[in-house]
Amino acid sequence: MAHIELGNEIPGIRGLLTYRPETAGPLMELAEVLLRGDSTLSRGERELIAAYVSHRNECEYCTRSHGACAAAQLPGGAEQVEEVLAGADATIRSGKMNALLTVAGLVAQSGRLVSDEAVAAARAEGATDREIHDTVLIAAAFCMYNRYVDGLAAATPDDPAHYEAAAGRLVSAGYRLVPLA
Amino acid sequence: MAHIELGNEIPGIRGLLTYRPETAGPLMELAEVLLRGDSTLSRGERELIAAYVSHRNECEYCTRSHGACAAAQLPGGAEQVEEVLAGADATIRSGKMNALLTVAGLVAQSGRLVSDEAVAAARAEGATDREIHDTVLIAAAFCMYNRYVDGLAAATPDDPAHYEAAAGRLVSAGYRLVPLA
Repeated sequence: MAHIELGNEIPGIRGLLTYRPETAGPLMELAEVLLRGDSTLSRGERELIAAYVSHRNECEYCTRSHGACAAAQLPGGAEQVEEVLAGADATIRSGKMNALLTVAGLVAQSGRLVSDEAVAAARAEGATDREIHDTVLIAAAFCMYNRYVDGLAAATPDDPAHYEAAAGRLVSAGYRLVPLA
Repeated sequence: MAHIELGNEIPGIRGLLTYRPETAGPLMELAEVLLRGDSTLSRGERELIAAYVSHRNECEYCTRSHGACAAAQLPGGAEQVEEVLAGADATIRSGKMNALLTVAGLVAQSGRLVSDEAVAAARAEGATDREIHDTVLIAAAFCMYNRYVDGLAAATPDDPAHYEAAAGRLVSAGYRLVPLA
C-alpha cells in the first residue's frame, strides 16, 4: 500500500502522476525528451541506461518497465537486457554502450564519483559530449523517478503482463500521454 | 572544468541548462512547481528541504544556492539553515519540518528506506498527504539535480556573492527564467 492516499488504484508511477498532475507534466516531458527525443543514442540504448540505473537503485517497478521498453527496442531483445542487468558487461555488444553504462552506474552512486577517466573512456569509444551529457542526465533522472516510486511505496504489480502492456504503450505513444491514460 | 565542452562559461546548473535547452524546460518547470507553486509548505521550508538533501549528497553548488534561497525566505534566516545542515535537528523550530526532513534524508539514501514509521511520524506532527508527497518528490528531484551538476563537474564558484545574487534572482523571479538569463 502506498504511503499516502492517492485516490486511485493505478500502480507504479502512474498512480503518483495522476495524484499530482502539476508535477506530472514536467516529469513526463523530461522522460519524453531524454528517452525518445532526438539523439544519436537509440531509444533502446537510452531505455537500457534507465533500466540499468533503476536496477542499481533496486527499484523493481522502474527496472521491469524500462527493461521491457529496452527489450522491445534493442536488437538483442530481452536477452541483451538481462545480460546488462546481471552485470555481464563483457557481453554488451557496443564498447561505447559499455563505457556509458559505467558512467551511469557512477552517477547512480554519486555525481561526485564520475571521474575524468570514466568520461575519457567513453570518449575513446566514440561517445560525443552530447551523449555523455544525456547519459548523465538519464541516470540522474532515474535516481529521481526510482526514489519517487519507492519513497511513496507505489504499488508494484507482480504480473509480467503489466510491464509488457506498459512497454507497448510507451514504445508506441511515448511518455506524454501516460498521466492521461 | 566541466567534463564536456559546454560552449559557455556559466557556472553551476545554469551552464548545463544553456547547453541543452530541450531538457532545461521541464527541469526548471519542475523546480518552479515544487519549490514555488501552491503549497501549504512555505517557499523557505521547501528550499530548506532542497538544501538539506543537496548537503547530504555533498553537492556544494546546490547546497549553497538553495541554502541562500532558504535563508532569504525563512524566519530564522541563515542561522536556521546552518543549524539544519549541521544536523542539529533539535533546533528546528517546527516539529513537522523536523519529521519531513527525516523523510527527505531517507529518500536521499534510497526510496526503499522510507518507512511506514517515518511517514507516520510526519503525519503525527500534522503533515498532510500532499506535504509528504511533495517532500518525497523534492528530495528525489534534488537527487537528480545534484547528480546532474556534479556528474558533469559543473563549475562551482567559491565567492559567496555568486550564491547571494543567484538567490536574489530565484526568490524574486523564480526558476523558469533561469536558463534565459
